[in-house]
This record gives sequence, C-alpha cells and structure tokens, in this order.
Amino acid sequence: MIKFSQQALRLMPSAIRNKAFNAPDIIRFSAGQPAPELFPIAEIADLMPALLLDSGPAALQYAATEGCHALREIIADRYMPTCGVTARTGDILLTAGSQEGLEMSARLFINPGDAIICENPSYTGAFGAFAPYGPRYVPVSVDDNGMCMDALEMALKANADVKMIYTIPDFHNPTGITMSLARRRQLAELAAQYQVPVIEDRPYGDLAFDAEPLPAVKSFDREGWVVMLGSFSKILCPGLRLAWLCAAPALMEKYALVKGGATLQCGTLDQYIVLEYLRRYDLTTHIEELKALYRSRRNVMLKCLKEFFPAAVRFTSPQGGFFIWVELPLTIDTNALLPEALERAKTAFVPGAPFWVSGRPHNFLRLSYSNVTETEIETGLKRLGELVKAKCAARKL
Amino acid sequence: MIKFSQQALRLMPSAIRNKAFNAPDIIRFSAGQPAPELFPIAEIADLMPALLLDSGPAALQYAATEGCHALREIIADRYMPTCGVTARTGDILLTAGSQEGLEMSARLFINPGDAIICENPSYTGAFGAFAPYGPRYVPVSVDDNGMCMDALEMALKANADVKMIYTIPDFHNPTGITMSLARRRQLAELAAQYQVPVIEDRPYGDLAFDAEPLPAVKSFDREGWVVMLGSFSKILCPGLRLAWLCAAPALMEKYALVKGGATLQCGTLDQYIVLEYLRRYDLTTHIEELKALYRSRRNVMLKCLKEFFPAAVRFTSPQGGFFIWVELPLTIDTNALLPEALERAKTAFVPGAPFWVSGRPHNFLRLSYSNVTETEIETGLKRLGELVKAKCAARKL
Repeated sequence: MIKFSQQALRLMPSAIRNKAFNAPDIIRFSAGQPAPELFPIAEIADLMPALLLDSGPAALQYAATEGCHALREIIADRYMPTCGVTARTGDILLTAGSQEGLEMSARLFINPGDAIICENPSYTGAFGAFAPYGPRYVPVSVDDNGMCMDALEMALKANADVKMIYTIPDFHNPTGITMSLARRRQLAELAAQYQVPVIEDRPYGDLAFDAEPLPAVKSFDREGWVVMLGSFSKILCPGLRLAWLCAAPALMEKYALVKGGATLQCGTLDQYIVLEYLRRYDLTTHIEELKALYRSRRNVMLKCLKEFFPAAVRFTSPQGGFFIWVELPLTIDTNALLPEALERAKTAFVPGAPFWVSGRPHNFLRLSYSNVTETEIETGLKRLGELVKAKCAARKL
Repeated sequence: MIKFSQQALRLMPSAIRNKAFNAPDIIRFSAGQPAPELFPIAEIADLMPALLLDSGPAALQYAATEGCHALREIIADRYMPTCGVTARTGDILLTAGSQEGLEMSARLFINPGDAIICENPSYTGAFGAFAPYGPRYVPVSVDDNGMCMDALEMALKANADVKMIYTIPDFHNPTGITMSLARRRQLAELAAQYQVPVIEDRPYGDLAFDAEPLPAVKSFDREGWVVMLGSFSKILCPGLRLAWLCAAPALMEKYALVKGGATLQCGTLDQYIVLEYLRRYDLTTHIEELKALYRSRRNVMLKCLKEFFPAAVRFTSPQGGFFIWVELPLTIDTNALLPEALERAKTAFVPGAPFWVSGRPHNFLRLSYSNVTETEIETGLKRLGELVKAKCAARKL
C-alpha cells in the first residue's frame, strides 16, 4: 500500500488536456494552442546552422539557473518597456512556460489553507499548479473592466490570510475580458497597501486586436509586490517552453532557489534559439501578423455565435487573446453536453465548471479560436449551435 | 514584509552551482558537466532541416504531458532492456532532467518530517530538490559494494516513517562507488518487504569503463516499488533537459499529474531532436566513444592524485561515471581550502560537507574529470596537490 504525501493527494487533473479531445475528426475549440502556421519554422531552420556551428557546445551544455544572460537582457531592455515596465536583467528569470512561474509562486507563498484571491472564473490550469499547496480561493467578481476593485479591497480586508492575488488582466482566460487602466493602477496600490504579492499572468498581453496593449499591472508597482509572468508560448511557439518572470530582488532570490532545486534551468538550446531569433528578426512585425490572423478568427467566431446559436446564448467579445466565454441557458450542463458535442457535433470545447472557484454554474463553456481555420470555425460552430438549439427545443417540449 | 511559505523557508542553495567557480582561468573539477567535444552537434545540425521541414508545426507546438509517444516507446523498447528492465511505453514519463524526477518524487512521498533513507554521503543536488518538502534524512553507510544492506534493514526497522529510499547505485555521486549485483537484488526485496518506494538515480549507469554495466535495481522490482530515473544529460547532452522516469502504473498516474501541474510537459523540439537522433544514429556506438574519453581522463586523474598529493590523502577508484571522492587529512577543512584553491591554485572542486547527511566530516572533496582535458587535469591537480602539501606541512610545524 503506497503512502502518498498530502501534496500528492491534492493533485488535480487538467480539464484542458482532456484526452477525449484527441479523437479523430474533431474540430477543437478546446486547447489554447497558438496557430502553427505562424510558428517561426523557416526562421529557426535559417538560424540553426550558424547557431550550432558558433555556439554548439554552449547551447547543448548546462547553463545558468536564472537563464542565459543575453536573453534575459533583451527581455529586460527591449520587451519589458513595451509593457510599460522598467526592468534590469537581474529582475528576469526564465521559466519552463508560465506554468512553472505559477507553480513556483504557489510554492513561495502558500501554506495549506492560505488564501489566494483570483478572478471568478479564472484559468483552471493555474488551479492545477496551485492545487498541491492546498490553497483556499477567495473569488472576486469581474465585470467588463476586469476584477472589481471594491470587491478586491473587501476581500483583502475580510481575509487576513490572503498570501497571493492571481490575475490575468489581458484578454483573460477564460472570459477574454481586459482589466481597465485605472484598475491596474488600483490593483498595484492595493497590493502594496495590504502587502500581498500579485501574480500577473500575461501570456496574451501583446495580442491586442483593436487597440494598443495596456501597460502591465507591474508598470504601476513601486515596491516590488507584483510578479509579472511573460511568455514566448503565444507570441513565438510553446514547444520551446520558454517564459519568464519579472520580480523584485527580494523575491527573485527565492524564485531562483526554487528553479534550481526543481529543474536546474530551462532548456539551453531553446534559449539560444529564442535569443538568436530576437537578434535576427523583428518580434513586433511577427506579432502584427499574429494579430491579423487571430483578429479574423475572432471575428468569424463572433459572427458564427450570433448566427448559429439561440438568441438566449450570451458570449463575451474579447479585444484580443484566444478565448470567448459562452453562457448557455441555465438548463444546459456543459459537462453533460461535451460527450454529445464530441460524438455528434465532432466539436470540442472546455466546459466552464473547472474555471469557477465558487458558485460553479454549469452552463458556461470556453471556446478558443486560435488554432482553427475560419472554415473550421464555421463548420464546427454550426454543428455545435445546432446541438445547443436542439437541447433548448427539447427543454421547451 | 513578505510572508513566505514554509516551503520557501526550507529552500537551499546549490553547492555545485557556486558562482565563484565561474571566475576566469579556473580549471574546474567542480561541476559534473559532460564533455562538450562529444556532444552530437554535427548530428543535430544534420537532422534539423528535415525535422523542421517534416514536423516543424508539431515540434514547436504543445505536446503530451507524459512526453512524445514515439520517444517513450524507444526508451521502453530499446533502452530499458539494456538496464535489464522490461518496460512498456506507459511506464515511461519524460522529465526536465533527472532533477525534476527527484523533485517530483519528494513531492509525491514526503510530508514535512518524513524520513528519506540515503547513502551517506549522497548527491547534494538531490537534497536541494527534496529540501522544500522538509524531510529528515536517515543515513545508511556505504562500503566498496555500495549501500550496506544490513544497515538499510536496521534503518527500515527503526524508522516507521521512512517514505522513500534514495540511491545512486552506479558510479555514485560523489563517491564513484558501484552497488554490487547482490545488493541490488536485496534492495529491491527490502523495498517490497517494507513497502517503501526506491528512487534509483541512474544518470551514469551506461558509462561503465571497466566492465559491462550492471542491471538496474529496477530490474529486480517485482511489485513496482522502484522508480528508475534515466537521463540523456550524460550520454547525449544536458542542454536539451531530457530525462525520464520508469515507474509502475499506480505511481505513474501521480507523476503525470505532478508534471502537468508543474510544467505541463518537456520541451517539444528537444524531444523531436532526441527521437530523430535515436532513429538515425547508434547510441551504443556513441556511448563507447564517451567511455573511451572518460576512461582516459579518470586514469590521468588517478595517476595525478597518486603523484601530486601527499601519501596520507585517500581517494576512490571509480569504475565509471564522472567523480572521484577525495579524503584529505582531518586537519584540512575543504570549505576553507576552496577560496585558496580558487585564488592560488586556480582550481575548483566541490567541498564535501554538503554531500553528507550526518557526521559531516569537513575533510572531503569531490573531483570531476568529465569536462577537463588531460593537460588540465595534470596542471590543475599539480597546483592543488601543492596547496594541499603546503597545508599538511604547515600543520606539522
């Protein structure tokens, strides 16, 4: 009889990496996968021979725990200012995707039973990273301008054991909502006032379709309470597993110890590839191409939701990112709908329940338009819309 | 005032990744780095164009948490039998270096205060992975045949809270000692009898210079109590951060949940590179080349230790792997010796203290011959030997 630890007993499976989604002939609105047709494959093929010739031994050897200095420097000097953040190289630590940044943050701040404040709903994958540490979630409501600051302050006052605020201010996962500029400033101020770290998860921040990206919450951070998680997964490709966190020195010291103990360092070759890519190519131009592709797909998805779904179905209109959050009539349980959607509509979505930390209404679902063609969006949503219409009609009989 | 978690307060820095070692003109016997002159750089350069052309989109996209099926299949079908282990693809999970396998194991089995049995001394980097979980160490003595089985059984009887046995049976880090075949069998039997998981760390197992590699402890595991950690870091290169664990289904289910929550998956491109390498090239031939290089370096290091060090200095004679464990006279504290070795002998080693879990004698040091040329070994050990001789002479005055 195996004796597992308390952490092991708290582990939770991913609602997004559901193997049922992998069945053949399924149109997948489920995973938040970036579009591979814009992966920098030709660029990587182009830079690789010189990289291996000039730096092969170093690129395949062990390297620094914090990450390659030159890459951290480019992130600090060139990328962070685009988020409105002034950072030094020492403020940047590379992580194996933002997922590792989430995991490390929970490890640094959460004892079992401690509270995490988060948007409700929020990213279920983050709950998976936090789960082993046994947090209690304090939900804060969200409106069209993101996390409500009055509700946040009430939550901070009412819960002395809040150890972390988790937020996705840009094109929120799953809702697609963006936090207003004023609230970003307020959030940074409340964090400092209540001395609670904010984990600002910003994988989609650059993918703003209809306006300039807003400055990060981190840009309003005067005292080092905000840890910003940035990532190359959505703006280059996720297979290199390269993301970073930007944190003040007092926190950075601990993050580096966690990273060293857990995985030593990020992949060295992956770091060299991204470094060389950023030296040779213009990331801004690449992001413009991404935005054009995702903007079109979002437009088609919004049109199809209007056209193919019952009028009672509500959905968000994201200004960027990957996701639309759909509210079906209360009579429809999206957990029960999923097997039928897979079987009959040959369409995958992520049921909404795992994204909620309280209330847990069962009539929501998350759709991603990032890795489906416009034709697939039309075909898949037509079939899914018909299934939903049939459910609604059946209820009325 | 930042409130850190209990885990954060238990973090420990690495004794091996000491930044003082990076000073210029130092001959480094410190890190266990493989020799970059045998990294498969030409092979990777050769396979990369076709890989990117044929599989670029998949190789840069998100992939399965457990790792790429084809690579796990090759590990199970072709590699594991060379350790004497019969494994199925489902028994293999890819990890970001064995370090992640160590971290995940502590997470699965250790509550604060629980006991881990290990060789004394043992790999200090493993202590870094285990530290956040707050274990208590129960040391078991080691002789020329590895961990003593009588002592192990006594330790198991005396400590009901042992949750894990950690062992490096092949060319042990730091001592270079190899566990005998008989003891491997006994260890597997004791694990089953006392129902305690064994974490068998096997990064050096293939690098047997003087005889055939011994079958893994895992090969004697009938009931699934042994988790074997294998790695490409030492037999291909560490910069791809690819290792694996081989575990029974009841454990594998939990390991996959940890992996998904912590880092989602290993680097996809790294997996494709190793997969394609294994399809095109003969790993066995490559390992023969590695063994020839490391065997020569070991021979030179042993010769230099005899030649340049006082007769009172004792050292192990490893039959493979990367390390020699050196015992200086009791009067010499290797922690105090290190700054002088760096400054005056321009030579780096790892002081022995952080490898011990009890007793903690201060007169040991670890030398690695893996990433130094024969000339560097001669030059560095001559200088270090002179420093040690001077210390011994000064004591006698």
